[in-house]
Amino acid sequence: MADLDPQQKIALINENLQEVLRPDIIEDAIVKENRPLVIYWGTATTGKPHCGYFVPMIKIAQFLRAGCRVKILLADIHGFLDNLKAPIELVKFRAEYYKYAIKALLKAVGVSLDKLEFVLGSSYQLTAEYTMDLFRLSSVVTEHDAKKAGAEVVKQVENATLSGLIYPLMQSLDEQFLGVDAQFGGVDQRKIFTLATEVLPKIGYKERAHLMNPMVPGLAGGKMSSSDPDSKIDILDTADLVRKKIRKAYAAAQTLEGNGMISFVEYVLLPVSSLQSSDGSMRFEVEQREGGKEPIVYSDIDTLKEDYKADRLTPQLLKGAVTKGLVDILTPIQAEFRASPEWQEVEKQAYPPAEPAKKKKTPKDKGSRYPGAVKANPDGSVDGPGKETVEVGSSAEEAMGRLEVNGVK
Amino acid sequence: MADLDPQQKIALINENLQEVLRPDIIEDAIVKENRPLVIYWGTATTGKPHCGYFVPMIKIAQFLRAGCRVKILLADIHGFLDNLKAPIELVKFRAEYYKYAIKALLKAVGVSLDKLEFVLGSSYQLTAEYTMDLFRLSSVVTEHDAKKAGAEVVKQVENATLSGLIYPLMQSLDEQFLGVDAQFGGVDQRKIFTLATEVLPKIGYKERAHLMNPMVPGLAGGKMSSSDPDSKIDILDTADLVRKKIRKAYAAAQTLEGNGMISFVEYVLLPVSSLQSSDGSMRFEVEQREGGKEPIVYSDIDTLKEDYKADRLTPQLLKGAVTKGLVDILTPIQAEFRASPEWQEVEKQAYPPAEPAKKKKTPKDKGSRYPGAVKANPDGSVDGPGKETVEVGSSAEEAMGRLEVNGVK
Repeated sequence: MADLDPQQKIALINENLQEVLRPDIIEDAIVKENRPLVIYWGTATTGKPHCGYFVPMIKIAQFLRAGCRVKILLADIHGFLDNLKAPIELVKFRAEYYKYAIKALLKAVGVSLDKLEFVLGSSYQLTAEYTMDLFRLSSVVTEHDAKKAGAEVVKQVENATLSGLIYPLMQSLDEQFLGVDAQFGGVDQRKIFTLATEVLPKIGYKERAHLMNPMVPGLAGGKMSSSDPDSKIDILDTADLVRKKIRKAYAAAQTLEGNGMISFVEYVLLPVSSLQSSDGSMRFEVEQREGGKEPIVYSDIDTLKEDYKADRLTPQLLKGAVTKGLVDILTPIQAEFRASPEWQEVEKQAYPPAEPAKKKKTPKDKGSRYPGAVKANPDGSVDGPGKETVEVGSSAEEAMGRLEVNGVK
Repeated sequence: MADLDPQQKIALINENLQEVLRPDIIEDAIVKENRPLVIYWGTATTGKPHCGYFVPMIKIAQFLRAGCRVKILLADIHGFLDNLKAPIELVKFRAEYYKYAIKALLKAVGVSLDKLEFVLGSSYQLTAEYTMDLFRLSSVVTEHDAKKAGAEVVKQVENATLSGLIYPLMQSLDEQFLGVDAQFGGVDQRKIFTLATEVLPKIGYKERAHLMNPMVPGLAGGKMSSSDPDSKIDILDTADLVRKKIRKAYAAAQTLEGNGMISFVEYVLLPVSSLQSSDGSMRFEVEQREGGKEPIVYSDIDTLKEDYKADRLTPQLLKGAVTKGLVDILTPIQAEFRASPEWQEVEKQAYPPAEPAKKKKTPKDKGSRYPGAVKANPDGSVDGPGKETVEVGSSAEEAMGRLEVNGVK
């Protein structure tokens, strides 16, 4: 694929986003200053990254393709605080696992990792400079504003811990300490992002741009139980297991709302096909079951949605095609895993066998970028077409968390 | 004065205190372990220390006499956060000034400074260990509990900043990082102290004892205006100025409540006389104006209070005696100041001439140990005999701040 011109870069950066704050900052860097835009995306290193992560990852792939420098903040401190009973070493291994998984996925998509950088939160969030700035921020940000900022991602419960008020300040300060032009996340982060734009200048730092993914339903749809391991598709799941999980996933015929299959095509499979094609065109192929029929080929999401509404594209056919598309992405990732004893070792240390039982007990704590401290509010103010709408924008972990919360309600 | 036995030490430590939490911790150190009790008292280095500081300082003198190791936390970070416009250098000079002033006062009282230690907050509150522990605390302390802890010292206003919720956590953590057995402060700190006892064990640290001074009215009484510089007696004020300020101070005849003169005798002059006598006895002398009459000598506060209620001891006579007692303490302090070019230099740098005008504008921000972040609530829940009751226990700066707030209401 040929180099993109500045306007093509900006279009690719903005593709599929719901909202961009201060687009002039992005244009200035790319058009006026003719330099790579520096973007950060943060994720707490807790649960095992699964296919829900693909939605934000595809945006990161697009940023990289558009020539951006991307910094992925592996928020290990937050991961640790999420579960103080787990040793900090476990969190370090998890951060390592995240690196392996994210890199393998981006390689599978086919983008260059030259401008990708991983930063551990603990590498700077415990320094004297950062701490002092956090204190300074805490002296200019009111309790009320900090609470408001977290309102979409922090459950407004009586026993919310103080960390839920501190994290939005850290998320603001991270922009300065990571030296970025912009922060990327789900639109549920919007109030935290606007807090960042307001408060950084108060302590002498510049305002950043903010890029927001829409809230999209998870692959599994909204009907999975929190105790059902099938509600998440692990990136190491076999093709058979993927097929089985997708077959069980919720996808009502003719209904676009809350349809995780459609969303996965729109936000993952079509963009990936574009990134992998020589001319940037999109392609999604649906095999037809009746013998001899040619596959249906979609090159845009609108036609696919029309066909689905009209039931020309049935859930069954769509699921088959999504399964194939997903397995095609997972195959090189899993090949890389099998070829890397280091990654296999990290996987064992990061997610020891006892983990699955524990994970079942805490799905309600997984409702945000920083699970545990900030809780999902599935019945609340989340933008989207319905109850089964969940966040996958800022962190797919959240998406599944929300899904599970919906499931047990 | 001879060495005290363990029970005498404990009695001196407890003298004039309103409340002690976990006295067994104190007894264990002194009686069972036969070692010095380690106590900390914290003060934010902001305004110039004045005679209101004498109340907590006399307790510190008593702790030292009782063989305790005393750590005075000069909370320079808090001083800085109180006024982000002032350069951090100014705060460092102020911390230096506090050291000179406190040491001179304790020397004037006549106690050994061998077991006294000053610790700058910035020397450990910005380390990775402290920051991590602060994050850990913020993950186990609820917003609700942090707010409740600060309720007596933090004004419950809409625009309260987040720092007001973080400071109680720091004040808890300081006990661990300073390695103390006990924390001393005014009884308005009670809820912060009980928070500390509850939350330190949650992150694996031990519970400490807490020693609380009562809330006592300031020297100036409750009727001074915030814009009136006479509401504070600086430790460097001349004898004439002291006389003038005390003459103007509010002290109703026959009324003990809110009477700063009586409190100063009870909490400063009588204890000082005891520390300075060879046998620990107390003595307070009141000159009588009519020629030839012998001075009245009090050796306890109760007799003095009875005489005052009966108007045998008039405000005028009491003021004269308090003036003399205060000037007697100030004289060696001021001699030390004049003999120390270093202290004089620090005084100039810590409180440059432009300061007085600025101080007038911010009295309402001076209502706590950590002025600015936590605000005085003079109409609120402060223990004490009346509206003019102010805090001098944890920090005399607060006392005067509250006084001033009362004054302008």
